[in-house]
Amino acid sequence: MTYRPRPVSGFPEHLPEIRMAELQMLDRIRATFESYGFASIETPSVEELEVLLAKGETDKEIYTIERLQADENAGGESRLGLHYDLTVPFARYVAQHFNDLVFPFKRYQMQRVWRGERPQAGRFREFTQCDVDVIGIDNLAVTFDAELAAVAMQALEAIGISGVTLHISNRKILNGFLQGLAVEAADRVSVIRAIDGLAKLGTEQTRAMIIAGCKRPNAAEIADKCIALAGIAGEREVLDQVRALGVNHDELAQGLGELHEVLTHLNFLGTTNAVANFSIARGFDYYTGTVYEGRFDDNPGFGSVVAGGRYDDLAGAFINKKLPGVGISIGFSRLFAKLLQDKEITTTRRSPADLLIVLPSEERREQMLTTAQALRKRGFKVETYHAPQKIGKQMSYAEKKGIPFVWFPPFEDGNGHEVKDMTTGAQTPAEIDTWKP
Amino acid sequence: MTYRPRPVSGFPEHLPEIRMAELQMLDRIRATFESYGFASIETPSVEELEVLLAKGETDKEIYTIERLQADENAGGESRLGLHYDLTVPFARYVAQHFNDLVFPFKRYQMQRVWRGERPQAGRFREFTQCDVDVIGIDNLAVTFDAELAAVAMQALEAIGISGVTLHISNRKILNGFLQGLAVEAADRVSVIRAIDGLAKLGTEQTRAMIIAGCKRPNAAEIADKCIALAGIAGEREVLDQVRALGVNHDELAQGLGELHEVLTHLNFLGTTNAVANFSIARGFDYYTGTVYEGRFDDNPGFGSVVAGGRYDDLAGAFINKKLPGVGISIGFSRLFAKLLQDKEITTTRRSPADLLIVLPSEERREQMLTTAQALRKRGFKVETYHAPQKIGKQMSYAEKKGIPFVWFPPFEDGNGHEVKDMTTGAQTPAEIDTWKP
Repeated sequence: MTYRPRPVSGFPEHLPEIRMAELQMLDRIRATFESYGFASIETPSVEELEVLLAKGETDKEIYTIERLQADENAGGESRLGLHYDLTVPFARYVAQHFNDLVFPFKRYQMQRVWRGERPQAGRFREFTQCDVDVIGIDNLAVTFDAELAAVAMQALEAIGISGVTLHISNRKILNGFLQGLAVEAADRVSVIRAIDGLAKLGTEQTRAMIIAGCKRPNAAEIADKCIALAGIAGEREVLDQVRALGVNHDELAQGLGELHEVLTHLNFLGTTNAVANFSIARGFDYYTGTVYEGRFDDNPGFGSVVAGGRYDDLAGAFINKKLPGVGISIGFSRLFAKLLQDKEITTTRRSPADLLIVLPSEERREQMLTTAQALRKRGFKVETYHAPQKIGKQMSYAEKKGIPFVWFPPFEDGNGHEVKDMTTGAQTPAEIDTWKP
Repeated sequence: MTYRPRPVSGFPEHLPEIRMAELQMLDRIRATFESYGFASIETPSVEELEVLLAKGETDKEIYTIERLQADENAGGESRLGLHYDLTVPFARYVAQHFNDLVFPFKRYQMQRVWRGERPQAGRFREFTQCDVDVIGIDNLAVTFDAELAAVAMQALEAIGISGVTLHISNRKILNGFLQGLAVEAADRVSVIRAIDGLAKLGTEQTRAMIIAGCKRPNAAEIADKCIALAGIAGEREVLDQVRALGVNHDELAQGLGELHEVLTHLNFLGTTNAVANFSIARGFDYYTGTVYEGRFDDNPGFGSVVAGGRYDDLAGAFINKKLPGVGISIGFSRLFAKLLQDKEITTTRRSPADLLIVLPSEERREQMLTTAQALRKRGFKVETYHAPQKIGKQMSYAEKKGIPFVWFPPFEDGNGHEVKDMTTGAQTPAEIDTWKP
């Protein structure tokens, strides 16, 4: 009986040529993270359910795991669930290994995560995230907020993504601004939510929501100020436009100061595609200072390509230490799926090999293999053909796999090696010790 | 309330310095696989339960996944389980993408797999395997059996594992040998099982098991022949010792011929640590020809470091095609755990950075950052210090993270850059454009 396999909704897999492009991108992201000194960690795919639920709220998206043939004696073990992001496992990791880590602790983590979503077009249930964070003890310099922004934007550049702008704000600005306008703490949430939705909702609806939310006699005036604030975006100079709105509050001033420092530092780092944008609030995540969101300039509807921010206390649920940090995450699978859909992944290679060495005759097998080993020692990736079939057939294998060069060992003693460039068709003499593409 | 996290039995995780060593090893294994032209694939972590159970028998080890808050409407979906090896997913992948693959299809796959074991000392429930296989349609040259052996042994060498010998046999040899001795098909299984256990059981017990198993009047004579066969190990010459046992059968002759070809080919490839060993049967896996098992010479009790073999038909359960292949697997996590336990992983670096650039004063921040970016462009991994603290404190950070060089920007205009080698203590002038470690 043959069981005909089918793709499982939400769990993508790729053909080798697509995987090759994916792997190259992941390598480049990793190299960028490491170039700033971030260290790799990986955590198990599962956490105890208590850990996953420590923040609450997300229980609907968790996959639990169960042994198919669980026995009665297995009691007393905690239930385990697949992690749904890399932040909770990271917080648990830092708490658990606190004494063995050097702070500021800079780590990146590129792993699969799982969400127990109902199957739905375009929704992944398994996907890869690339997270990069730095954590301090008690405090952490705001210059790290700039470093994290720079590393994320450089990672995008490294994988050939252009036309993304990083929009940066600081939670303290909106919070301080609303306090300066005497909006009650309880009402600020809905006002911030309205401002956060400005791009989607438009000015009129946002204005109405702010007025409904802030419950003040001068609600209309507050809404105007908020919409004016949310409309400000640009280089460092625009911070003055915020000040010109005439709202005064210590937290606002502090937020503007931090944002200025971040933008200055980014300027030193040569990151040009980053702007202040006061409509950015990053929903109701745990962020407390800097927040960022990278969006396609010509496709804002895609949402955030990268996103992150500053948080006060990473691991408070797990350890009695104050561990502030700043981090940013690249939603890799979603981005890769977009590139695939837009046909921006061009793939011709189905083998990583630089070269295919043909086998002219059985007598040349030893020579083919020693040639292959010598070229591998020189760092080349080499396939050898397995049988002395017609040369045309062997070359067609190279062509089908997209191997860019075909190497011909001498067909007769006394002759030399030759290499054919499959792109240009040129065939030239080659030496094992010196050949280069 | 603080929930104190604890390690979950069977799900290992590592400190950054250990992870760095692990990542380096995985990189080297991957580079070795690619140097022979094997292409990366990854499959989802889950398969439909029907796929996982297509081979039967292993159901006890499967973890199924369930949404924590499954709703009533989710009916009609297949149950999903985490894959317990990379062979079943690979078979499903080849069947599913058959028309889009180029054969012989050479792939490697380095992924986590899960076994729903009860927690037990040293038993992993999540671990990484490194599998490499080649698949043909209808037939596949036996020279690939040698290539797979060579690539696995070269991968071990690349990660610094020495003292491993690859023991090679061919299923056809034992099968043909027993047929030549007129052992019934039904009895061969228990005889092969006995021979497979020779190293563990010793000669006497193996002999008794063979006699009990083969149910022939001349059982003692058969047992002697089998034990003689199982005792033969060595270079190609030992094939003659097998022939000298005087047992004749076509399948035996064919197996010896194939083994000779594999050993010859391995010799051409320069793989010296491989021998014929006729006690190798690889249990009752699906192997049909070549079988291999790599063992530590001075620690045979560790079991197989790498193992694999030739199979007739990879994906028969999923597609109506005959797809013979040969593959080998490195049980990476188990090997890495042994190296850790034996203190063979030496780690001093907790950051991938080659350099830490110190910040002498706030005024030097821009210079520090532009220096960092210039060095990163040259391919170096660079951390910058975040605050103009005492130089001793900044250097101590480099020391604690194991960063090998500390870079001093000029403390005053007109002076030059200097670099301190943290190992030797030597401090020398350095140019951004030309410095090398």
